[in-house]
Amino acid sequence: MQEKIRIKPKTLPGFMELLPKEQILFNRMKEIIQKSYEKYGFLPLNTPIIEDADVLLAKAGGETEKQIYQFKKGDNNLALRFDLTVPLAKYVTEYYDKLSFPFKRYQIGKVYRGEKPQRGRYREFYQCDVDIIGDGKLSIINDAEIPSIIYSTFKNLGFDDFTICINNRKILNGLFYSLELESESAEILRIIDKIDKIGANKVKEELLKNIENKKVDIIMQFISIEGNNDTKINSLEDMNIKNEVFQEGIDELKQVVKFIRIFGVPEENFKIDLTIARGLDYYTGTVYETFLNQHRNLGSICSGGRYDNLAEYYTDKKMPGVGISIGLSRLFFQLVDNNIISAENESISDVLIVSMKDEYELCAEVATKLREVGLNIQLNIEEQKLGKKFRNADNLHIKYVIIIGEDEVKNNVVSLKNMITGEQKTLKVEEAVDLIKKELKKK
Amino acid sequence: MQEKIRIKPKTLPGFMELLPKEQILFNRMKEIIQKSYEKYGFLPLNTPIIEDADVLLAKAGGETEKQIYQFKKGDNNLALRFDLTVPLAKYVTEYYDKLSFPFKRYQIGKVYRGEKPQRGRYREFYQCDVDIIGDGKLSIINDAEIPSIIYSTFKNLGFDDFTICINNRKILNGLFYSLELESESAEILRIIDKIDKIGANKVKEELLKNIENKKVDIIMQFISIEGNNDTKINSLEDMNIKNEVFQEGIDELKQVVKFIRIFGVPEENFKIDLTIARGLDYYTGTVYETFLNQHRNLGSICSGGRYDNLAEYYTDKKMPGVGISIGLSRLFFQLVDNNIISAENESISDVLIVSMKDEYELCAEVATKLREVGLNIQLNIEEQKLGKKFRNADNLHIKYVIIIGEDEVKNNVVSLKNMITGEQKTLKVEEAVDLIKKELKKK
Repeated sequence: MQEKIRIKPKTLPGFMELLPKEQILFNRMKEIIQKSYEKYGFLPLNTPIIEDADVLLAKAGGETEKQIYQFKKGDNNLALRFDLTVPLAKYVTEYYDKLSFPFKRYQIGKVYRGEKPQRGRYREFYQCDVDIIGDGKLSIINDAEIPSIIYSTFKNLGFDDFTICINNRKILNGLFYSLELESESAEILRIIDKIDKIGANKVKEELLKNIENKKVDIIMQFISIEGNNDTKINSLEDMNIKNEVFQEGIDELKQVVKFIRIFGVPEENFKIDLTIARGLDYYTGTVYETFLNQHRNLGSICSGGRYDNLAEYYTDKKMPGVGISIGLSRLFFQLVDNNIISAENESISDVLIVSMKDEYELCAEVATKLREVGLNIQLNIEEQKLGKKFRNADNLHIKYVIIIGEDEVKNNVVSLKNMITGEQKTLKVEEAVDLIKKELKKK
Repeated sequence: MQEKIRIKPKTLPGFMELLPKEQILFNRMKEIIQKSYEKYGFLPLNTPIIEDADVLLAKAGGETEKQIYQFKKGDNNLALRFDLTVPLAKYVTEYYDKLSFPFKRYQIGKVYRGEKPQRGRYREFYQCDVDIIGDGKLSIINDAEIPSIIYSTFKNLGFDDFTICINNRKILNGLFYSLELESESAEILRIIDKIDKIGANKVKEELLKNIENKKVDIIMQFISIEGNNDTKINSLEDMNIKNEVFQEGIDELKQVVKFIRIFGVPEENFKIDLTIARGLDYYTGTVYETFLNQHRNLGSICSGGRYDNLAEYYTDKKMPGVGISIGLSRLFFQLVDNNIISAENESISDVLIVSMKDEYELCAEVATKLREVGLNIQLNIEEQKLGKKFRNADNLHIKYVIIIGEDEVKNNVVSLKNMITGEQKTLKVEEAVDLIKKELKKK
């Protein structure tokens, strides 16, 4: 007889595929993010992963475009979405008449970028976005609600020691305008960005290579502004820079800080950071980055900002917006990789029910009763050795095992084993239900 | 100044994209299905949407292969998954050593088929699968647990009047073996399938064209078996067909019916239907189809069955399994299209808070308080006319609007309007919280 030709199954590099325990934890985080976003009244969207390539690439270009998955199917030029912002722009333009503005939406879904695969960099990864889109204009107070969403999301995820860094691009832009350094702004920001690594003196040295002394002094004064949030705003005002954009930036930042407090974000969880810029051409006002204070090395775990014109490639309607994104796949990898979270104790089932031999009927009966009272129950009535069934309960980290054998059937009882303490009791089904429910509630 | 060149945004035909209200309802259904699957101890998986084409197409061929989205990226031949079963086969082979068997997994995700778009047929659509995979063998009792999952899932979705139809392929196969009609079986099943439309006499007529009288009589005897589940099994036994496969099919069906009852599925929600076959070459034992009794025209809304060998294209390990799938995108479309469900009243937010003019601070304060007690709150502090803000609340079907104007600020109260009754009250914030929470609990 001829051997079947078999294909070696493999998952592509750069594509996250988790073991069940990790997937449970990942899903739990995803659900917490979703519920946090819903608490702020954001509506769910779920746009297609495949879009018309012309629509998706209306704005793209350069490095991004090279990374995009594009292909033909029949006569159609198709592409996989590479973020959730372009689909949002498409959506608000396409369904403009059917939406209420300000339009608040969240979308949690996979996006695709054919980057060179690296540890913790994925080609298929989840983004979890919220955006508030205005029709023509959008109050600055929305920019203060966003940090409150970041705050409550990460609190709900179990984090305490994190800082939401806030800046306003108008302050940076205004500063560069006032110094007539607009065209050098990208280069200056690149140098400033190195301050943590190389120190203020080296930054100054590098700036002096191309910029005159007096201007460098002002830049250095700007980036050395320190203190608490109010002190920083005072210092900005004290710089006395005569530029409308700069002043507008300060006014907006003041409003944002004031309302962040009203929205209940504690002082220790946000701060003005005048050096963050978040790319150059997209954001136009408030910008955000978020850091775990004990793990600054992870980089920003939640970023975003204000933009003037979401959908300019599709419509002449002006739609300003403000939003953030959590790159969940990468964040999850980093948190696990750095032992900040662990999937070891994750489980779906509250109880595993196993038969000693062929006590299938009582097993099925008990499983049904326990499911009816709201417990998650896995049943194992296979012809396996009992030891193997217990090992499975351990692997799946199921806390309780109900064992049903000849004696249990005879007396219409169950043996309930707590897999953590090793304690085993013989109980009536109703007693077992009560005990399990009580214990689970304690958690 | 030159006009910007704008792209007309459009969503591709055959790709479902919902308005927010519909998306809320869709997500709610998806979450109910997920929680129902978890109640039975199924573990979550989330495999990539893009796979190596050779791996994905190991088994494909014919019509399916033509529908598959395939493309190259760099040197890689890639394909989008067209179901969740092939990725499962890949997964259990790839991670075999790390899994506990029987391996119970659910996966809810998008799959892709480049079919001709038709009303309610999508190229990107959700499948919601559960499967139980054995290592070498798998108890028949699992085949009885599956209808219990179908039952509780559709009950949880709010349906009562549905029937899970059960058959066993061995009965059909055994019958055809015993009549030496294996090679005609596809054609016979095709004719039998028309019985509801054309009646028994016409079916007999068609069968007689190619099959001898005596054999047609036995087939007609078989398909005319009626009565309740026990009567049907008795009638099958009474046919006295001397074929091992046929007898094995009856034995399995008896076991399945017995345990379906123990698993708590009411008699009116399942029945033996000896004519269902579910395709020809994949299923080998128990098969399932599920129908809404008042809407038989929708076809089966949840189908599946038992198969002998999940991963034969990847491994020589024998892994039998049993599972079902709900095609959620199509089901959702059909339910909405037939007015069986409606998204009209769906809402994310419990309360919309609006400012009369510039009472932003109290608005933000109240929003924060209400979120802290667990309510979903949308805030609208835009410079919009109050009428427009109310229309938005109506559009979003938010039941309560809190209005904050000059008077409310002066007296530190809020005006709470019930958008359904039109009733409006002036209350302290705490009173408003109590009233809203009480009303929401009533639902």
